[in-house]
Amino acid sequence: MNGDSGKRTAEEPDAEPVSESEETVFTWGAPPLKFGAGASDEIGFDMAQYGAKRVLVLTDPGVAALGIPQRVAENLGRYGIDAAVYEGVHVEPSDASLAAAVDHARESGPWDGFVAVGGGSAIDTAKAVNLLTSCGGELMDYVNKPIGGGVSPPHPLKPLVAVPTTAGTGAESTAMCVLDVLSMRVKTGISHWRLRPTLAVVDPLLTMTLPPEVTASAGMDIVCHALESYTAGWYADSARRRPEERVTYCGSNPVSDLWCEKALSLIAGSFRRAVRHGAEDVAARTDMIMAATFAGMGFGNSGVHIPHANAYPIAGMVKDYRPAGYPQGEPMVPHGQSVSLTAPEAFRFGFPSAPERHLRAAELLAPDQDRASDPAERLPRALVELMRDIGIPNGIAAVGYDESDVPDLVPGTMKQQRLLATCPRPVREEDVERILLNSLRNW
Amino acid sequence: MNGDSGKRTAEEPDAEPVSESEETVFTWGAPPLKFGAGASDEIGFDMAQYGAKRVLVLTDPGVAALGIPQRVAENLGRYGIDAAVYEGVHVEPSDASLAAAVDHARESGPWDGFVAVGGGSAIDTAKAVNLLTSCGGELMDYVNKPIGGGVSPPHPLKPLVAVPTTAGTGAESTAMCVLDVLSMRVKTGISHWRLRPTLAVVDPLLTMTLPPEVTASAGMDIVCHALESYTAGWYADSARRRPEERVTYCGSNPVSDLWCEKALSLIAGSFRRAVRHGAEDVAARTDMIMAATFAGMGFGNSGVHIPHANAYPIAGMVKDYRPAGYPQGEPMVPHGQSVSLTAPEAFRFGFPSAPERHLRAAELLAPDQDRASDPAERLPRALVELMRDIGIPNGIAAVGYDESDVPDLVPGTMKQQRLLATCPRPVREEDVERILLNSLRNW
Repeated sequence: MNGDSGKRTAEEPDAEPVSESEETVFTWGAPPLKFGAGASDEIGFDMAQYGAKRVLVLTDPGVAALGIPQRVAENLGRYGIDAAVYEGVHVEPSDASLAAAVDHARESGPWDGFVAVGGGSAIDTAKAVNLLTSCGGELMDYVNKPIGGGVSPPHPLKPLVAVPTTAGTGAESTAMCVLDVLSMRVKTGISHWRLRPTLAVVDPLLTMTLPPEVTASAGMDIVCHALESYTAGWYADSARRRPEERVTYCGSNPVSDLWCEKALSLIAGSFRRAVRHGAEDVAARTDMIMAATFAGMGFGNSGVHIPHANAYPIAGMVKDYRPAGYPQGEPMVPHGQSVSLTAPEAFRFGFPSAPERHLRAAELLAPDQDRASDPAERLPRALVELMRDIGIPNGIAAVGYDESDVPDLVPGTMKQQRLLATCPRPVREEDVERILLNSLRNW
Repeated sequence: MNGDSGKRTAEEPDAEPVSESEETVFTWGAPPLKFGAGASDEIGFDMAQYGAKRVLVLTDPGVAALGIPQRVAENLGRYGIDAAVYEGVHVEPSDASLAAAVDHARESGPWDGFVAVGGGSAIDTAKAVNLLTSCGGELMDYVNKPIGGGVSPPHPLKPLVAVPTTAGTGAESTAMCVLDVLSMRVKTGISHWRLRPTLAVVDPLLTMTLPPEVTASAGMDIVCHALESYTAGWYADSARRRPEERVTYCGSNPVSDLWCEKALSLIAGSFRRAVRHGAEDVAARTDMIMAATFAGMGFGNSGVHIPHANAYPIAGMVKDYRPAGYPQGEPMVPHGQSVSLTAPEAFRFGFPSAPERHLRAAELLAPDQDRASDPAERLPRALVELMRDIGIPNGIAAVGYDESDVPDLVPGTMKQQRLLATCPRPVREEDVERILLNSLRNW
C-alpha cells in the first residue's frame, strides 16, 4: 500500500516526550449516515443487515399523527422484521417518561433493535430504552454524576437507527440523552459513546411541512450548536487527561470545527428561505436538516456552553408563554428559543477569549455583512439580524421574564457546570446575571 | 429538546415522490478517532473498554524494528490484556500473505481483539485477519466479485484498533482491504462496512522519523486520495440504487468533500515542510497524518479514480526501479509514486467534466498560485510544482517505462473498472493510453 517498509533512521517515540501538563489528544465519533430524499424508505433493509427480527419504533404522538412511524414499521415488515410502534415519547423527556418507555419496552420485549422517529425527544428516549433493555439496571445508575451513578454501559447496546423529523437537535449524531429529573427539578443527561445511534437516517422529506415557527426555533438550535462548538475552549488548552478521564465534550477541535463551519455555511444560505418557503423550497429544507446533522457531528464531541446553559432555567421556569406554531395546551419556551435568546450577549462575553473564531463564525453565518463595524459586534449582529428576520422573540422579555426574574434564573444556569466548563472563559454568577439582563431585549 | 410537538398542517411524505431514476441518497461512515501526540499510549485503556482479554498486535518487520508494536503490547498488558505481536505482515499484502497471517491467528487464537500498527499493509492485513477469524470461511469467499464470492460478513467483527505509522493510505479510516491475488496477477479487495476499524488511534509521534523520500511518496497518496475523491462523479449524478445495491464508493458527496477540502488545506500548509524538516517540524508532521486520516474519512466513502487505477499496472509491472529511501532488495514503485505520476494528466482529462471542482482543488492545494493562467492547467500545475519540490520522479519514464511500454500498461488500468466507474467521465482505452503517454514526463 505504501512506504511501510521505508527505512527509518532512529527509534523515535521515546525521544519526543508528551507534555504531562497540556492536553495533546482529542476524541471524535459519529454514526454512519444515510442521507437523502427517500432514505427513510430503506430502514427495513438497514435493520435487516444488523440481524434484527423484532424492532420497536419509538415516536411521540405528534409525529405519529403524521403516519411516518407507521410507514417505517411497514417498511421493516417488508424485510421480515416484526415491528411495533410506541407512541408514548414525551416531548422534553423526564425520568418518569423514560421509565414509562423502558417499562413498555421491557414488558413487550425482548426487542433486538430500535428505530427512533422524531425530534431529539424521540431519539433520546430510544437511547435510554436501548441502554436499559440492553444492559439492565435503573436509569439513575447511568445518569451523569453527581446526580446519578455515572455507570458506563458494560457492553454494546442493540442496534438503534435514528430518524430525525425536525431540523434541530442533531440528536441522531450524538452520544447523549438529555432528561429532566423531576424530583430534583434539574435537567441532566446520560453521556457515553455506546449510546450513539448505530445509523443516522436523515431524510429531508420528513421535514417538509414543519410550520415556519418550528423551522425558525429548531433552526436556532442548530445555529447555537454550531456557534457554541466553534467558540468552545480549544481542546489543547485544557489540562491533560488520563484516558479514563476523557469526556464526551472535549472542547473545540479540528474535526468538530469542520462540521460546524459547514453547518454555518448551510444555515447562511438556506435558513431564511426554509422559514419563508417551507415545503416549496426542498433545497433549503435539505440544507437545514443537513446542517442539523452536521452540527451534531461537531458539537456532540466538542460541547456547547453559555447559551445552552441559560436555556435550562429559561425553559424550566416558564410562566405563561405560549408560542405560535406550537400546541397551546401548556406554557413552554421552545428549546431553540430558550437557547438562542441569550446567544448574542453570550458571544459578546466570549469574544475577547477568541476573537478570530468569533469573527470567522460571523463571516460564515453572514457572509455579506459589512466588515467595517466593531469586530466584537459582528457575531451578535449577525445573530440579531437572523433572529429578527425569522420571527424569533425579541429577548427573554418577550417570553415573559423581566429584570426582577434574573436573580432567580442565574442559579439554574450555574448548575450546568458540565456545559459552562466548555466556555473559553471562566463564567461567574455575575457574568451570567449580566448576560441575562442584557438579553431582556436583543434589538 | 425541540419542536417535536410542532403542529403540522398535512401528511407530507407521500406527497413528495422520490425520483426513481436519479440518485438522491448518499452514505458515509468513519471510525471514532483518538488523535494527538501520545494517543497510542492509551490503547490498553481503549481495548479494555471493548472487554478484550487476548489481543493480537499485527505489524510488519520494518515497523517492528522501531519497537512501536512492542510498546503497544506492553501498554495492553498494563490493562490486564494478554497481548502478542505478529510481525509477519507483508508490505503490499497478497492472498498468500493474508492467508499466512490468518493461519497464524487461527492457530494461536482465539483472539478477542486486534491492533494494527503500521501503514496500510498492516491495517489491511488486520482487517482480513479480523474478518476471517470472526466470521470463518476462506479469503476468496469475501473478495469483491467477480474475482471472489463477494460474501458480506454476516455479523460484527471483533474490535480492531488501527494505528497508522505512516502519513499516507488513511487505511485506519476506511472499510477496505486491498490485496494482490497472486495466481491471477490482479489487485483487488474486500470492501464492506463491517471491516472498518473500531477505533483509529492517530499519534503523530509515530511518524516523526519517516525518511524524506517516504514522507514525499506517502504524502502524494494523500494528495491523490483527496483530489480523486473531490473530483469523483457526484453521487446524485449516478443511477438510483436500491438499498441492496449501494456500494462503499458512492461518488463525491457533501461529507467526503468536507474531509478532502480540509486535507488539501493541511497539505498546502505542511507537505513541503514535512519533507524538508522531518522530525524537527512536529506541527507539519501532525498536519500530514491528520491530512491522511481526513482524506481516508472522505475517499473511503466517495472513491478514487484514474490515478489510482493507473497505479496498479505502474507498480505491478515494475522493471528494475529501486527508489531512494526504500529497501533496495527488490525493484518497486512506491504506491504514492505510482499513484501520482499520472495525476496531472488525469486531472487535465477530467477538467471539462467538473471545472469548478478542479479549480477549487487547485486553490486549496496551491492557495498562492497565479490565477491568470489557463484554468484547465491550474490543478496539473499545482501538482507538478509540488512533486518537483518534494523530489517525486519526473513521470513514468523516471521509474523505468518508455513509450513502447504504454500498450502493455493500459489493460492493467482498464481492469480496475470499480475505480474507473467513479471517474466523472467515461474512460476508454484510448483515454488511458493518452494519459500514460503524456505522463512519461510531467515537466
